[in-house]
Amino acid sequence: MANKKYVYFFGQGKAEGSAGMKNLLGGKGANLAEMTNLEIPVPAGFTITTEVCTAYYENNQQYPEELWAQVGENLKKVEEAMGAKFGDPQKPLLVSVRSGARVSMPGMMDTVLNLGLNDETVQGVISQTRNERFAYDSYRRFINMFGDVVMGLAHGKFEKIFQAKKNELGVKLDTELDTEALNDIVAKYKALVKQETGKDYPEDPRTQLEMAIGAVFGSWNTERAITYRRLNKIPGDWGTAVNVQSMVYGNMGNDSGTGVAFTRDPATGENVFFGEYLIDAQGEDVVAGIRTPQPINIAQKKGSTLPSLEEEMPQTYKELEEIYKRLENHYTDMQDLEFTIQKGKLFLLQTRVGKRTAAAAIKIAVDMAEEGLIDKPTAVLRVEPGQLDQLLHPMIDPNTKPEVIAKGLPASPGAAVGKIVFTAEKAQEDAEKGEAVVLVRIETSPEDIGGMHAAQGILTARGGMTSHAAVVARGMGKCCVAGCGALEIHGEAGYMSVGDLKIREGDFISLNGSTGQVILGEAKLIKAELSGDFSKLMSWADELRTLKVRTNADTPEDAQVAREFGAEGIGLCRTEHMFFGEERLPIVQEMILADSKEARQKALDQLLPMQKSDFKGIFKAMKDLPVTIRLLDPPLHEFLPKGEELIVQIADLKFQLSSMASLEEIDDLLAQIKEKEYLATKVESLHEFNPMLGHRGCRLGITYPEIYNMQVQAIFEAACELTKEGYSIVPEVMIPLIGDVNEFSYIKKSAIVIAEDVMKRSGVTLKYMLGTMIEIPRAALTADAIAKEAEFFSFGTNDLTQMTFGFSRDDAGVFLPGYVEKKILSEDPFIALDQTGVGQLVQMGVEKGRSVRPDLKVGICGEHGGEPSSVEFCYRVGLNYVSCSPYRVPIARLAAAHARIKEEQA
Amino acid sequence: MANKKYVYFFGQGKAEGSAGMKNLLGGKGANLAEMTNLEIPVPAGFTITTEVCTAYYENNQQYPEELWAQVGENLKKVEEAMGAKFGDPQKPLLVSVRSGARVSMPGMMDTVLNLGLNDETVQGVISQTRNERFAYDSYRRFINMFGDVVMGLAHGKFEKIFQAKKNELGVKLDTELDTEALNDIVAKYKALVKQETGKDYPEDPRTQLEMAIGAVFGSWNTERAITYRRLNKIPGDWGTAVNVQSMVYGNMGNDSGTGVAFTRDPATGENVFFGEYLIDAQGEDVVAGIRTPQPINIAQKKGSTLPSLEEEMPQTYKELEEIYKRLENHYTDMQDLEFTIQKGKLFLLQTRVGKRTAAAAIKIAVDMAEEGLIDKPTAVLRVEPGQLDQLLHPMIDPNTKPEVIAKGLPASPGAAVGKIVFTAEKAQEDAEKGEAVVLVRIETSPEDIGGMHAAQGILTARGGMTSHAAVVARGMGKCCVAGCGALEIHGEAGYMSVGDLKIREGDFISLNGSTGQVILGEAKLIKAELSGDFSKLMSWADELRTLKVRTNADTPEDAQVAREFGAEGIGLCRTEHMFFGEERLPIVQEMILADSKEARQKALDQLLPMQKSDFKGIFKAMKDLPVTIRLLDPPLHEFLPKGEELIVQIADLKFQLSSMASLEEIDDLLAQIKEKEYLATKVESLHEFNPMLGHRGCRLGITYPEIYNMQVQAIFEAACELTKEGYSIVPEVMIPLIGDVNEFSYIKKSAIVIAEDVMKRSGVTLKYMLGTMIEIPRAALTADAIAKEAEFFSFGTNDLTQMTFGFSRDDAGVFLPGYVEKKILSEDPFIALDQTGVGQLVQMGVEKGRSVRPDLKVGICGEHGGEPSSVEFCYRVGLNYVSCSPYRVPIARLAAAHARIKEEQA
Repeated sequence: MANKKYVYFFGQGKAEGSAGMKNLLGGKGANLAEMTNLEIPVPAGFTITTEVCTAYYENNQQYPEELWAQVGENLKKVEEAMGAKFGDPQKPLLVSVRSGARVSMPGMMDTVLNLGLNDETVQGVISQTRNERFAYDSYRRFINMFGDVVMGLAHGKFEKIFQAKKNELGVKLDTELDTEALNDIVAKYKALVKQETGKDYPEDPRTQLEMAIGAVFGSWNTERAITYRRLNKIPGDWGTAVNVQSMVYGNMGNDSGTGVAFTRDPATGENVFFGEYLIDAQGEDVVAGIRTPQPINIAQKKGSTLPSLEEEMPQTYKELEEIYKRLENHYTDMQDLEFTIQKGKLFLLQTRVGKRTAAAAIKIAVDMAEEGLIDKPTAVLRVEPGQLDQLLHPMIDPNTKPEVIAKGLPASPGAAVGKIVFTAEKAQEDAEKGEAVVLVRIETSPEDIGGMHAAQGILTARGGMTSHAAVVARGMGKCCVAGCGALEIHGEAGYMSVGDLKIREGDFISLNGSTGQVILGEAKLIKAELSGDFSKLMSWADELRTLKVRTNADTPEDAQVAREFGAEGIGLCRTEHMFFGEERLPIVQEMILADSKEARQKALDQLLPMQKSDFKGIFKAMKDLPVTIRLLDPPLHEFLPKGEELIVQIADLKFQLSSMASLEEIDDLLAQIKEKEYLATKVESLHEFNPMLGHRGCRLGITYPEIYNMQVQAIFEAACELTKEGYSIVPEVMIPLIGDVNEFSYIKKSAIVIAEDVMKRSGVTLKYMLGTMIEIPRAALTADAIAKEAEFFSFGTNDLTQMTFGFSRDDAGVFLPGYVEKKILSEDPFIALDQTGVGQLVQMGVEKGRSVRPDLKVGICGEHGGEPSSVEFCYRVGLNYVSCSPYRVPIARLAAAHARIKEEQA
Repeated sequence: MANKKYVYFFGQGKAEGSAGMKNLLGGKGANLAEMTNLEIPVPAGFTITTEVCTAYYENNQQYPEELWAQVGENLKKVEEAMGAKFGDPQKPLLVSVRSGARVSMPGMMDTVLNLGLNDETVQGVISQTRNERFAYDSYRRFINMFGDVVMGLAHGKFEKIFQAKKNELGVKLDTELDTEALNDIVAKYKALVKQETGKDYPEDPRTQLEMAIGAVFGSWNTERAITYRRLNKIPGDWGTAVNVQSMVYGNMGNDSGTGVAFTRDPATGENVFFGEYLIDAQGEDVVAGIRTPQPINIAQKKGSTLPSLEEEMPQTYKELEEIYKRLENHYTDMQDLEFTIQKGKLFLLQTRVGKRTAAAAIKIAVDMAEEGLIDKPTAVLRVEPGQLDQLLHPMIDPNTKPEVIAKGLPASPGAAVGKIVFTAEKAQEDAEKGEAVVLVRIETSPEDIGGMHAAQGILTARGGMTSHAAVVARGMGKCCVAGCGALEIHGEAGYMSVGDLKIREGDFISLNGSTGQVILGEAKLIKAELSGDFSKLMSWADELRTLKVRTNADTPEDAQVAREFGAEGIGLCRTEHMFFGEERLPIVQEMILADSKEARQKALDQLLPMQKSDFKGIFKAMKDLPVTIRLLDPPLHEFLPKGEELIVQIADLKFQLSSMASLEEIDDLLAQIKEKEYLATKVESLHEFNPMLGHRGCRLGITYPEIYNMQVQAIFEAACELTKEGYSIVPEVMIPLIGDVNEFSYIKKSAIVIAEDVMKRSGVTLKYMLGTMIEIPRAALTADAIAKEAEFFSFGTNDLTQMTFGFSRDDAGVFLPGYVEKKILSEDPFIALDQTGVGQLVQMGVEKGRSVRPDLKVGICGEHGGEPSSVEFCYRVGLNYVSCSPYRVPIARLAAAHARIKEEQA
C-alpha cells in the first residue's frame, strides 16, 4: 500500500481525476476534475479520496500514513497554480475545505471557508485586495466557522458577540459594521475560543488545514448525517471525499457575487436557465437562505423587484450561459452549478446533476429525449420511480377559493394540510399520534430533518428556492413554501402573525407548494392531474417493461383509481374489508358468536348476497382484466370488541349498580351486565397470544368450511351473472396462509364442488384458477409440493417478512428504528424487501414452484409490490407481476421498466 | 393390471407368501404364510393384499376387477385342503375373516368368525361334530357378529335377547343354555336383523364372505382406528390386508380350547413361556377379557387356583412348547402366538412379534444378545427409544406403606396417582383441565382409547394380561392394573366399592402396575431404579452412537438428574428461569420499571451476585462437561402482572371506594389505585400484539445492553472463581433470536470486552465460545454470514417451528388437532420435527454454517432433541449433539444409536 494515491489534483485546465471517478472522489470532486478538464474556470485544488474516509473509520479513526505527505505535495501545486502561498504574509493562499460524497447530501456535512487566515495572512489579504473591511470580515467569518465546525463551539455564541457589537453601534445590517468593529469582533472571537475550549485558536495554517480535514471526515458520522442517509438509503460505508480548493471571493464588493443555478427549472423542468445569486456575498449566504437572493435572469424575475445578474453583469451572465450549455451537453443531464464572481471574474465552484421535482424530472427526461440528447431508455431511467409519489397524491382543488393569507416561493410542489407546529420535535411528536402537521420555521437547518419528514409540508419565512428547506423538501417529495417574508414567527410564544392575523400553534393551515400560497384552514384536496409528459414517459416505460403491474383493491372505487393509473388487473382483493362494513359487522358478529353450524350458516346466508354484490362491483370495475380474490384472512376476534374494553364497561356498569335506586334500573343494568359478560366470555375464548400466528387464513377455512364456501359461492355467482351480461371473467380465487399443500387441497376440494355447482345452476362455464398466497416460510420451502395443486402463487411479503425475521410488524416499532440507527439492518424490511433473507425464500418459491409447473403464474401482493428496489428484485427473480396500492401503480410500472433496462444494459 | 395377484394362498405345508411380505400381506398374513412354510399346523386360508385396501380407498371404494375371481379360486384350494366345501350342507367349510395390517392394531379392526353358517350348513356342522349345542352356539355367535360388524347393528341389541333368554330360563352362565334355547335365540337374532335393517340376514355363504371382506376393509377407516393410528403414528395409506382362513374350534368341549401366548414374559422380559387359555372357548373370549383365563403352565400359576394347560393337556402343551421355541429361533424375536385346540389337535392361528413393556424389551434384547441369538446392534434396535419413557418416570416409593385396598393383575408397569373417573369422556374432560385421573372400567373397549390416553393409569375389574386394557396400556407405556375382581363398579351412581369401602368419583387412588396393587389416596412416588440390563443396553448404545446427548437444565438439581441419565453437557441453560425466583422477581420488576439507565443498572447490580451463584451451581454440577448458557430471552412483560388483572383490581378498588367511610381508608385506597394505575400504564406500554415476534431475545440485549452485560459478567466471574478452585470450565455463551449477523456482532463486541475484563481482573485465562441459537428462519437462510461470527449454532426448533409454520404454539391448540385428524399434517410438528419444512432450514443452516466454518459445532436444544424420529434426523444432517430434558436423555442416547446403526445397515 506504500504507493497508494490518496490525493488528486485539479487546476490550470488539467485534472488527475474525471467525472467517472465519483465513487473515489465523490460527486463534487469528480465534477471539479471534469470541469477543469473541460477548461471551465475552476479555482485550483485537490480531492482527498473517499477511501481515506473508509480507512479512517475502519482503522479506529487513524489516517493512512501517506496522507499528509500527499496533501503537502498537492498544496504546493495549488500554490503554483494560484501564484499564492499558504501562510504567506504577502500573498497568502486561502482555501475552502468541503465534503463531497458519491451522492449529494445538501447541508449535511461540514465545510470550512477562508482557511489559512491568521493575524499575519490577514495583512496579506489586505495588501492584495486593498479592502481591509473584506479581509477582517473574512477573518471573523473564518474564526466563527472554524470554531463552530472544527472546534465544536455553538454558532450562537459567536452570533451573540456579533449581535452585541451591532447593538452597541446601533446598526441593523451586517454590512454596516466597519473594519474596526470587525477587528474587535475577531479579537472577541479568539477570546471566546480560548475561554470555551481552553486552547488557542490555531494560527498555523497547516494545523488549520489538518484539523479542518479531520472535521469534515468526522461530519460523515454525525447524527444528522446518519439520519439523512437512513432516509435516503445511502450506505454508511460509502464515505465522503474532502475537497481542498483555493478560495475565490464573491464578497469583494459590488463587482463580486456568488450564486447557484440549474440548467433547467428544477421545479417544473422547463428548459430555461434558472438560478439565484447574491451580490457581494459568499456562497453559504445563498444556500443558508439568510438573505433573499436575486434572480439570475430577466425571465425569472416574475415580479421580483430585485435586479437580476443578466441586468447587473450582462457579460458575466453571457459567459455563464455559454458554460451552462456546455456542461449540460457534456453531461447530458440537467446540472446544478455553483459559481462565484470575484471582481468581475467568473469561477465555477461545482457542477452536479441537479435535484428536481418529479414533475421536473419527467419533463426534463421527455424534453431531452425529444431534443435527441438522450434515448428513451435513458429518459425512463432518469425518473426515479419513488419520486412519482409526489405527483400521484392529491392537490388543492383549483375550483375552491381558499383563504390565501400570504405567498412565498413555490419551493416544492404538492399540497399540505395540517396543524401548525413550530419545532421539529413537536412535529415528530404529533405525527406519531397520527396528526397531520405543517412545520413552520424561520428557516430550517439539518437538525430539523426528522420533523420535516414527519410533517405534511414545510413553510419557512426566509430562504430561496435553493435554501435548505427547499432542497430537502424536494428530495423528500414533500410540499414546501419557502421565503414567505410576510410571516412573523413567534414560536416560543406559540403563534405566528401575518399583518394583524394571529395564527396559533395547533390551528390548521394549508400550503400549495406549486404556487407558494399559504392558506388559512383546511383546504379541499383533489386528485393530481397528470401531465402529458407523464403519460408519454409512462408509455415509454410500458413499452420497455415486461413485468405486469396489478393493484391491491378491495372496492370498485379503488379499482377504478388503479385502472386510471394503469393497473393491469387486481392482484389482491381482500374480502375482509367487506366484512367490516357498518351494516355487515353485526351479521359477521352473529356468525362468529354462533354456537352451532346451523346458526353460523344462517348468518352466512345473510352475508352471501352482500359479498356477491361486492364482487360484481369489482368485476365490473376491472372489466376484462384479471381479478384475484383472497378468501377471508384475519382472525375472527378482529371483528369483535376488545376484551379490555368489555372489562372496563362491565366494571363501570357494576359501579353504576351501587348507586341505582329503582328496581327497573337495576334490572336493566343486570341485563346489560349479563350480555356484556357473555360477549366477554366469547372474546376471551377467541383470545390469542400471538394472533399473527393464530387461527386465521386457511386455518379458519378448514375449521369453518362454511365461511369459505359462502365466499366461493358469492364469487362464482357474481362471475356467472356478469358473464351472462357479456363480461368476460376468469376468477382467480386465492387461499391465504397456506403452509402445507394438504391445507390447499382440502379447501380446493370444496371450492371446486361449489364452483361447479354454481356454474351448473347458472348454465355458464367459466375458466377459473385456484391459487395461493406464499406468505409462510414453509410454503416457500415446500413450493414444489404446493405448485402441484395450486395454479398460481402470490407472495404475501408482509407476512413472509414477519415470519422470516420473527418480527411482528405491530410491535417492531420499539426496536426496529434502533436497528437501522445502529446499522444492524440497512433498511426497514417492511418498506424495502429484504433481498438477503426473505428474498431467498421468494426465489426458492418461484424456482420450486416452476420446477413442477413451468407456466406457474407468480406475483407479489405485499406492500413491497410498489417499492422500487423490491419491484426490481421481483423482475430479476422472474415474477409475472407485482401488485400494489392504486397510487403506487405508476411507481411500480416505472420501476419495472428500470429493472428491464438495467438488465439489458448489464 | 390384468394379471395382478391380489390373493395369496397358504395351507398344506406350503404358502405363496412369506414373512418378508409384510407390507403386502400384513403382519398376520405374512406370518401365517411363514408358519405354513415352517410346517407348523395352520388352518388353510388365503390373504387379500393391502394393495386392495389402498386401491379401494383411492378408487372411490371400488374393488379391483380381478378380485372376486381370485377369491373364488383360492376358496377352492382351501376347500381342497380342508376336505370341506363352502356352503355344503353335509361337510361345510366355515371360515374366519380378519384384518391384518403391517403392524398390529389390537382390537381396532373388525373380525367375523364362523362365516359360512346358515340354516342348511348348521346341519352339516351338527352331523360332522355330533354336537348340536356347539353348532347352534356357533350359529348364534355368527349372526350376532355378522349383524354387529357387517350390518352395523349394536351389539347390545343381541346381548339383550341373549340375557332375556337366560333370565327366562333362570340360568347364570352362557354354557348353561341348551340347544333349544340357542335355536330360539338364532331365530330371534334373525328377526332382529330383519327388523332393524329391513333386510334379511344373508343365507348365501358367498354373499356373507363378500360382505365380511368389505366390512373389514371398511373398518380401516373407523374413528377408533384413525385415532389409534394417530396415537401410534401409523400412516393411513398403509391399508390392511384381509385374511380368510378356515375355522377351527376351541369350543368343541373339554378337549378343546383356545389361547394366546408369548415366548417370553411380555411384562418383565423373563425367558419363560407365558400365556393364557380358556377351555371350551373361542379366541375372542380370551382377547375380550370377558372370562378370566387360565395360566398356560405351572410356572405361571402364581397363586391362581385355575388349572394350567400343562396340567390339563400335557401332550398338547409339549407340542406347543416345541413350536414356540422353533418360532422364536426362526424369527429371533419374542413371539405372540394364538392357538386353538380342536378336539385335542393343536392349530396355530397366528404368530407375530410380541408387544412388550420397555423393561421387557430391554431384558429380552440383552438376554438374546447374550444367548447369541442376535448381535448387539440388533439388540439395541429392538428397544424403541420412545418406550424408555415409561422406565424413566417415578414409581411408588417402596419404603412407604400405602393402603392397599385390592390387588389385580400387574398388566402394565409403572405407577399412577389420580382422581377416579368412570368414563373415558370424563377422563378426557378432566385431563384437559390439567387434572390427574385414573380411569376405572369393568373392562375397556376400543372406544375408550382416548380416555386411556388421557388418564394416568387404567384399572379394570375384569380381563387378563392380554385383555384389551392390558395390551393397549402396555403399548402406551401407561400403568395398568387389570382383572381386579374385588372391585364392584357403579359408574352411573358415581362410586365403586371394595367390600365395605365406598370410593367415589373424584377420590384419589394410586395404582402400582408392576405389582397390581390398588392403593387408596395419593401414594408417594420416587424415581425409577434402572436395571442392570438397562445400563448394559445403554452402554451398547453409547458404544454405537456418535451423536452426543446434552440436556436442557436451568438448575443444579436438573443438571444432576441429567448427568445420572448420561447427559454429556448442558445444551441449554435458560437464564430467565432464574429471574422468576421469589426473591428476585421484585428486583427484576424494579429493573424493568426503571426510568433511566442508572436506575436499571442499580437493579442489575443487585441481580449480578444472584446470577453468579446460579452459574456457579450449574458449573459445579456439570464439572468438566460443557455448559451452554443462553442470555435472557423472554419479553420483559412476562415478568410483570397481567394488564387485565390490574384493570380488574383497579375497578375493584374504585368500587370499594364508594362504600368507604373513614378518610383514612379513602386515602389508603386512593394511594393503592394510583400505584396500580402507574403499573398498568407501564404494562400497557410494554404490551405487544404478538409477543412471540416482539421485543425479546437479542433484541432486548441490543436495546438494553446493560442486561446482557450483567449476565456475561456473572457467567465469567462464576467461571473464573471456579477455575481458581480447580474446575475446568469452557463457558459457551449463547445469544438467542438472532436473525441477522449484525445483531450477533453487536452483542459479541460488548461480551468480549466484559469477558476479557473479568478475566484480567481475576488473573484467569479461560477458553470460551460465543455462539447463537438458530431459531428464526432468516438465521438459517443467512447461516453462512452468521457462522463467520458465531462459534457454535444451536437450533431452537420450538421457535423455528413456530415461525416456519406461522403457528403460535400457545394458540395452535384450536386448529392443530383438527389438522392431524383431517390428515392435513401427519403429526403435530411441535412433537416430532417437521423434516419436510423445518428440516430444510435445519439442513440449510448446518450446510451454510459449515461452508464458512467447517468445524462449526452444531446442536439442537428445542424439545425435538428428545424425540426419537427427530434425533435420527439430527444425526442424518450432521449435528454434533442434541439437547433435551433430563428425563429424555436416555431416549435420545438410544435414538442416536438407532440412527447410526440404521445408517450403517443402509
